[in-house]
Amino acid sequence: MSDSNITQVKLLAFDVFGTVVDWRTSVIAEGEQLGKAKGINIDWTAFADAWRAIYRPYMDKVQSGEFPWTKLDDLHRMMLAATLKKFAIESLSAEEKEHFNRVWHRLKSWPDSVPGLERLKSRFVITTLSNGNISLLTNMAKHAGLPWDCILSAENVRRYKPDPRVYLLPGELFDLKPEQVMMVAAHEHDLQSAAKHGLPTAYVHRPMEHGPGKESAKPAAGRCDIISTDFVDLADQLGV
Amino acid sequence: MSDSNITQVKLLAFDVFGTVVDWRTSVIAEGEQLGKAKGINIDWTAFADAWRAIYRPYMDKVQSGEFPWTKLDDLHRMMLAATLKKFAIESLSAEEKEHFNRVWHRLKSWPDSVPGLERLKSRFVITTLSNGNISLLTNMAKHAGLPWDCILSAENVRRYKPDPRVYLLPGELFDLKPEQVMMVAAHEHDLQSAAKHGLPTAYVHRPMEHGPGKESAKPAAGRCDIISTDFVDLADQLGV
Repeated sequence: MSDSNITQVKLLAFDVFGTVVDWRTSVIAEGEQLGKAKGINIDWTAFADAWRAIYRPYMDKVQSGEFPWTKLDDLHRMMLAATLKKFAIESLSAEEKEHFNRVWHRLKSWPDSVPGLERLKSRFVITTLSNGNISLLTNMAKHAGLPWDCILSAENVRRYKPDPRVYLLPGELFDLKPEQVMMVAAHEHDLQSAAKHGLPTAYVHRPMEHGPGKESAKPAAGRCDIISTDFVDLADQLGV
Repeated sequence: MSDSNITQVKLLAFDVFGTVVDWRTSVIAEGEQLGKAKGINIDWTAFADAWRAIYRPYMDKVQSGEFPWTKLDDLHRMMLAATLKKFAIESLSAEEKEHFNRVWHRLKSWPDSVPGLERLKSRFVITTLSNGNISLLTNMAKHAGLPWDCILSAENVRRYKPDPRVYLLPGELFDLKPEQVMMVAAHEHDLQSAAKHGLPTAYVHRPMEHGPGKESAKPAAGRCDIISTDFVDLADQLGV
């Protein structure tokens, strides 16, 4: 990305699951804790991966119109029911399921997320731009100490990414042109969707998102405006 | 308010102009600075009061349907044009008017706002619930160091207070009952509108909002659940 392009960027919009927080380790840890308390002996790593594996199919039910608009908390709850069934777990009370479902509000951040965001916040408006609902993102920020300036979500426009309305939202609200809004994500498909609408893109490599040995390939040179190893490197590359 | 009611509250929703920030002193100071730079010799206190005096009439044009949904930045800009005309000021460039209009993004907070909010944030979700648009509230928070968990605005529902949808928004987003969402404001009419929809209310006395000698009367006992002198007193009364 040329320096003249970088100087145009005013706002950084962050994908959250996998990009800012380590959902997998957090879900496994709470699952193991729950299993111990309730005497449920299953592979909680496999459980976490199975729960997350049906994330896109459930959102697609909303995108296709099969489901009405449904916020992510409620999709997570349906996905949890399907995953509990898959693992033949029948001993959780309604309250226990509700509490476990809200593990997505209690995810831990990657070690560089808070220090990197603090630096980036000194120069840019930093906002979430996630499929997570507003209360999920707010509670997560409180839990993990994420210093967002603003919480923006697919819920604002009642459409999930990659709907264009999600990517165009920060620019509309902040009176910015697409080239002034940079999308930050650990997933190339999210960045490519943003780029289609004129947003500059910053890839952040998160090799452990899906666990050991499941590292995604970094984007080929030129596919993103910035390719960074973490948020501190991103701050360095943006000259903050 | 009984202790059992207080323990139900999970989220505090704050009015902003006058309640959290001292709009009048901030607008006067920037006006005087602009006047000095441009050689405009008028009474900037009268100018600030005149600009703000047409706040409600302009929002009413949106509420009545005379105007389509128009965010507060744009209403402020129309109100600025009318006020400049009233004071016969014709020497400002488009850029100067645009910059002055954004003084509402740069308002200073009352001295107790940040320390009070920091304490309240340790127990409650704290959010704006203002007629100010999302970018205005976000930029103001960055400027004044306001530690909001979340930025919620009339803009989320495209209706201005006292439209019920504004007061009901935090409960809907956070899956809370009305009695779990407390409205905090320096204006009794705002609190009474919130109370109509079941929200508990906290009044904060801001005797200098409209300048010396223009102090509003405190609400009569029993008209609000809490009557406080500032955000630190509010934190004390909420037992934080």
